[in-house]
Amino acid sequence: MSRFWSRIVHTLEPYVPGEQPRVANLLKLNTNESPYGPSPRALEAIGAAASDDLRLYPDPSSLALREAIGASFGLSAGEVFVGNGSDEVLAHVFQALLNHERPLLFPDITYAFYPTYARLFGIPYETVALDEGFRVRVEDYRRPCGAIILTNPNAPTGIALPLTAIRRLLEDHPDQPVVIDEAYVDFGAESAAGLIRDHPNLLVVQTFSKSRSLAGLRVGFALGQRGLIEALERVKDSFNSYPLGRPAQAGALAAWQDRDWFEHHTALTVAARDELSVALGGLGFGVLPSRANFLFARHPARAGADLARALRERAILVRHFARPRIADFLRITVGTPAECERLVEALREILARDA
Amino acid sequence: MSRFWSRIVHTLEPYVPGEQPRVANLLKLNTNESPYGPSPRALEAIGAAASDDLRLYPDPSSLALREAIGASFGLSAGEVFVGNGSDEVLAHVFQALLNHERPLLFPDITYAFYPTYARLFGIPYETVALDEGFRVRVEDYRRPCGAIILTNPNAPTGIALPLTAIRRLLEDHPDQPVVIDEAYVDFGAESAAGLIRDHPNLLVVQTFSKSRSLAGLRVGFALGQRGLIEALERVKDSFNSYPLGRPAQAGALAAWQDRDWFEHHTALTVAARDELSVALGGLGFGVLPSRANFLFARHPARAGADLARALRERAILVRHFARPRIADFLRITVGTPAECERLVEALREILARDA
Repeated sequence: MSRFWSRIVHTLEPYVPGEQPRVANLLKLNTNESPYGPSPRALEAIGAAASDDLRLYPDPSSLALREAIGASFGLSAGEVFVGNGSDEVLAHVFQALLNHERPLLFPDITYAFYPTYARLFGIPYETVALDEGFRVRVEDYRRPCGAIILTNPNAPTGIALPLTAIRRLLEDHPDQPVVIDEAYVDFGAESAAGLIRDHPNLLVVQTFSKSRSLAGLRVGFALGQRGLIEALERVKDSFNSYPLGRPAQAGALAAWQDRDWFEHHTALTVAARDELSVALGGLGFGVLPSRANFLFARHPARAGADLARALRERAILVRHFARPRIADFLRITVGTPAECERLVEALREILARDA
Repeated sequence: MSRFWSRIVHTLEPYVPGEQPRVANLLKLNTNESPYGPSPRALEAIGAAASDDLRLYPDPSSLALREAIGASFGLSAGEVFVGNGSDEVLAHVFQALLNHERPLLFPDITYAFYPTYARLFGIPYETVALDEGFRVRVEDYRRPCGAIILTNPNAPTGIALPLTAIRRLLEDHPDQPVVIDEAYVDFGAESAAGLIRDHPNLLVVQTFSKSRSLAGLRVGFALGQRGLIEALERVKDSFNSYPLGRPAQAGALAAWQDRDWFEHHTALTVAARDELSVALGGLGFGVLPSRANFLFARHPARAGADLARALRERAILVRHFARPRIADFLRITVGTPAECERLVEALREILARDA
């Protein structure tokens, strides 16, 4: 506390990301990173950006990248917004589109950064409980609100909403911005991007951190009609004219263009996820049906915190949330098949030891 | 305008950065970039960061970089804050430290982004007129205020305040945060960093974009006692956990460590600036005494806008601000000696043609 702080600072409860420790032979299944290095074309582009041109500011509008992303979705560059990771994109979304007199709605169990953003920008919000199966029920959002944000597939559950449900949500709230945060959509869920043409209230957010294996580069984006994108541009141009450096713009563009790499590696993760889900089921875990690159699982006889600790002793990190309703779950990032096997063997040992 | 926008969006007047056009043989003297490529060690580090490790999130706290910067100033890592360019650092500074009931003060002629930040975060502010010589007079800041921010050397004037004046300002306002934005300090002005020990109200902001030739990488930082840095960390951790990607952290660290490169190249720019100042004086320009990598100059017989246009026809970009008091000036980035000569020859021609 300090007399020099702006008032808002005293009220903040910062988001705490998953650990990034530096331990040898560590198996990091705690922050939903890809187990595969990024597209070699992306690495080459970043290497090429390490040139004397770094003395020059980057394109403040990241036009080439926005054009490439837009083209994939049948959208123009003006319908694409890019930022320094989808976390920055989301921060601008909260400030530009989600601050209204009526409360913002999001699930009680979802990306834990949402209430943090809301506090930073003084946004009133209410949470809507997931149902007993940890599913979003869009009919529960039929109440007075200023805006809605959903993660789809949801985190940390991994459960995806079908497009029919998203469409119903958009139609139920024609006068409210509806943001679908699709950080994990490429691992088998349906993107809402195709609904943008018919829904001026829809904003879709995606990231290069997961399915493009570029968590270390920091690039995310949003898709929507001009009305929504313009609001984001206005905030961005009042915050930081140049959010993406030259290596980030070049690397993301090359990664985006390497469609073969993307399809091959997302398929590997989907296959490993489905195998891991079966293996965990074989150990007695209840596993939620995931369309993401992680699984959310609980054991009927073991506390989540105990399992996480025992795994940690074996140099395996998973994420545990000490929060109501989900304290018995582990969120496990899907690794390579060999990494998944190491995890399963460790769990088998842990469960046998204290049986 | 859109019914989906948060109210704040309707009030924004985004900052407009200098142009970044793509024209052959263009001489860009409009955005204060360095004419020299960055340290080869920085390029090497960025190239090395183009590896499979990009699948992993970066260190959210940029610890190694903060330690290196801090060590140069006799500060700990906890007294250093880093961000995605000093523009992002400044955005967090405005939100975290400059929003008080009493108005924020800054000069009427200074970095044009300040009022934009103030509007974004709803910060009351008043401008304080530079004196007739375009100098900051710290005694003019002796009035009720919530905080003060000064660019030193000031932009676009290039005029620097001596440390004695900064110290007086700090002592005049012991209960207000005083931010000194030192984007251009390495070209011959005195940094206030040495005053941090004695002044818990002092925050110093610097950037890698100018004197480290890394405008394209996006790294800036702030220095201050823990009380101020903690406020910035709280806002950052409520906004984006990972503001600096792996290439940015690695490149900035290597650039910081290459002290020889830094000293050699800032000296080249200082020498070219002083020569250019003399040459412009020889053409009849009045040139303000600059401690930055740019000059602010006006011709007694020619309108600034006309000169900027005539230079543009010769593929030379300089910055012109169509604003009260400074509309007759050109802000000219100092290039290599050859680039400065091209500028001087072009101006000589323009002035001769219409004489």
